[in-house]
Amino acid sequence: MNDRFRPVRLSDEQRADWLRLIRTENVGPRTFRTLINQFGGAARVIARLPDLARRGGGALKVPPREEAEKEIAAAAKLGVRFIGLGETEYPARLRETDDAPPLLAVRGNIAALADATVAIVGSRNASAAGMRFAGSMARDLGDAGFVIASGDSASHRGSLATGTIAVIAGGHDKPYPPEHAKLLDEIVEKGAAVSEMPLGWEPRARDFPRRNRIIAGIALGVVVVEAAERSGSLITARLALEAGREVFAVPGSPLDARAGGTNRLLKQGATLTTSAADVVEVLTPILGRPPRPVLEMPREDEKIEPPEADDQLRAKIVALLGQAPVSIDDLVRESGAPPGAVQIALLELELAGKIERHGGLVSRL
Amino acid sequence: MNDRFRPVRLSDEQRADWLRLIRTENVGPRTFRTLINQFGGAARVIARLPDLARRGGGALKVPPREEAEKEIAAAAKLGVRFIGLGETEYPARLRETDDAPPLLAVRGNIAALADATVAIVGSRNASAAGMRFAGSMARDLGDAGFVIASGDSASHRGSLATGTIAVIAGGHDKPYPPEHAKLLDEIVEKGAAVSEMPLGWEPRARDFPRRNRIIAGIALGVVVVEAAERSGSLITARLALEAGREVFAVPGSPLDARAGGTNRLLKQGATLTTSAADVVEVLTPILGRPPRPVLEMPREDEKIEPPEADDQLRAKIVALLGQAPVSIDDLVRESGAPPGAVQIALLELELAGKIERHGGLVSRL
Repeated sequence: MNDRFRPVRLSDEQRADWLRLIRTENVGPRTFRTLINQFGGAARVIARLPDLARRGGGALKVPPREEAEKEIAAAAKLGVRFIGLGETEYPARLRETDDAPPLLAVRGNIAALADATVAIVGSRNASAAGMRFAGSMARDLGDAGFVIASGDSASHRGSLATGTIAVIAGGHDKPYPPEHAKLLDEIVEKGAAVSEMPLGWEPRARDFPRRNRIIAGIALGVVVVEAAERSGSLITARLALEAGREVFAVPGSPLDARAGGTNRLLKQGATLTTSAADVVEVLTPILGRPPRPVLEMPREDEKIEPPEADDQLRAKIVALLGQAPVSIDDLVRESGAPPGAVQIALLELELAGKIERHGGLVSRL
Repeated sequence: MNDRFRPVRLSDEQRADWLRLIRTENVGPRTFRTLINQFGGAARVIARLPDLARRGGGALKVPPREEAEKEIAAAAKLGVRFIGLGETEYPARLRETDDAPPLLAVRGNIAALADATVAIVGSRNASAAGMRFAGSMARDLGDAGFVIASGDSASHRGSLATGTIAVIAGGHDKPYPPEHAKLLDEIVEKGAAVSEMPLGWEPRARDFPRRNRIIAGIALGVVVVEAAERSGSLITARLALEAGREVFAVPGSPLDARAGGTNRLLKQGATLTTSAADVVEVLTPILGRPPRPVLEMPREDEKIEPPEADDQLRAKIVALLGQAPVSIDDLVRESGAPPGAVQIALLELELAGKIERHGGLVSRL
């Protein structure tokens, strides 16, 4: 990686290869990025992937090109385009995050993704007052020039006119809850709906925290309107903090369980927020900051010789790994091997389904 | 003033003289202190007071000794004792404040004044939930070992068993509202009721902010449970900040007008408080701090020669004063006179009712 952002434009073939790679079992956003950075280009990665997995002690099947082309064509029929990480249309703040989706499936007005965005999250069982507050907060922030990212209907309805982004946990053809299909149609007139999941994907409970990281990543800041202790909204706030985003919390009475989480966030340093002005005041000075680069895109014709890992190193790393996650730095130090070779060995083990990543840490599966 | 607190014990005569002096027109707590510090002892001040006032261009009548003795005797019949600033029973934190009452009329258990105290203030038109919260906060803080100072009934009732201090805005024989007379009787069994006003004094609206400064001054910290914007509770919080006290505020929904003031305090840096534990956590490390000295008490037989102000200096100072308050430092600089002489001239003008003090500032009346 270098220090400046170089925009790329994927060809149709590259886009299909990216989709094949990210739809491959055991390949998540972080692994995708490591693979591209190590081998340069999805086509090269795909060519080497079965071999890498075999060396890790597993087998891996990359979906064929036709399957990816079928998904792209089916998405196009729904008005959905795939935007690659590093392309100019890709949301700049999201690009800065460690586990940004390599491809975002976007329906609607792609320009909405380029705007300054604020996320608003409420509780799943929001109070009527909370929903009203979220709606008027969304309207006021929209009037102030911000696009509203959210997963809740009140915030979307409040900002339909100014632009809102729905981040959905399932495929574009599987809105959740299903009765929000009409709302989504209204959202994409001026704003956009985005998803990283394949068409046909029914969202499961575990897809929502994953969805929430996109909501947090896409925005300059996250406004938490209501949140019980140990709620999904608190997870979004934590993800936002980890991504270096501003966290805003709306206070509530200690006697109201739906304010337990927001009051806790305030104790931890979130900005106390009673109106859109509180948000605008904090975010306006931040808006001018240039984005950080994330993904270095080597040209496909560049010659790249990634380091190699041998059986001995892989065995050493397997021996070093346990159930408790350890850092890659520790593995490099304890194995005595070059960092690049350790990365390759970990990739191979990951592709073989032998290890699990937790942010920058790894453990044995 | 020196840097250590030397406790004093007033004789009956001194106590009566202190009462005569503080009951004299135009003599407030700050002037009382300046006079004692300048002239040494109430008897000496009283002897010189008419002359000082005459030189300021007015006339001043100090109540006769018999009147003060009558008030002390009447108070004693109600179980009320007068405690002088500087006596060991005087509340240590209150003694540190700039405008501490020279004499506190105390009914009940004087030992309660020596304890670590937390003030709880609510809104005049408290919600049922707010009152319930104040009551349980008072009970929990009482259980944690704090004495609760307050002006509201819910906080008192919550801490009757552990000790609570009622600061009343009128005389001890004029409880407000009158139906709280029975509650006061319960308070003084374990705790105390205090007042700086004479017996028979019916509290007026302007006496409440004055009362609130005692609540703030007596405590290590002030918990604001509910407060609308521009409410009396916010005044207490401001007085507490000025006195260097910790300010705690209970958050509320932005849709609840009674939380407007507490949410504003939180934005200004008050500690967000949802339970007694939040208060205990902040105050426990502060508790061990030694009190600062306030009032130097010269012995009555010490020879003191205060500086003198002549007609020329008084005229110069009157010319320098206008409607807008100015600092005494400015007057010293602009008059070119010694600071002690300026202080005496200001005392004379104040006793004559020609000027008004605003904290450390003065203006012409």
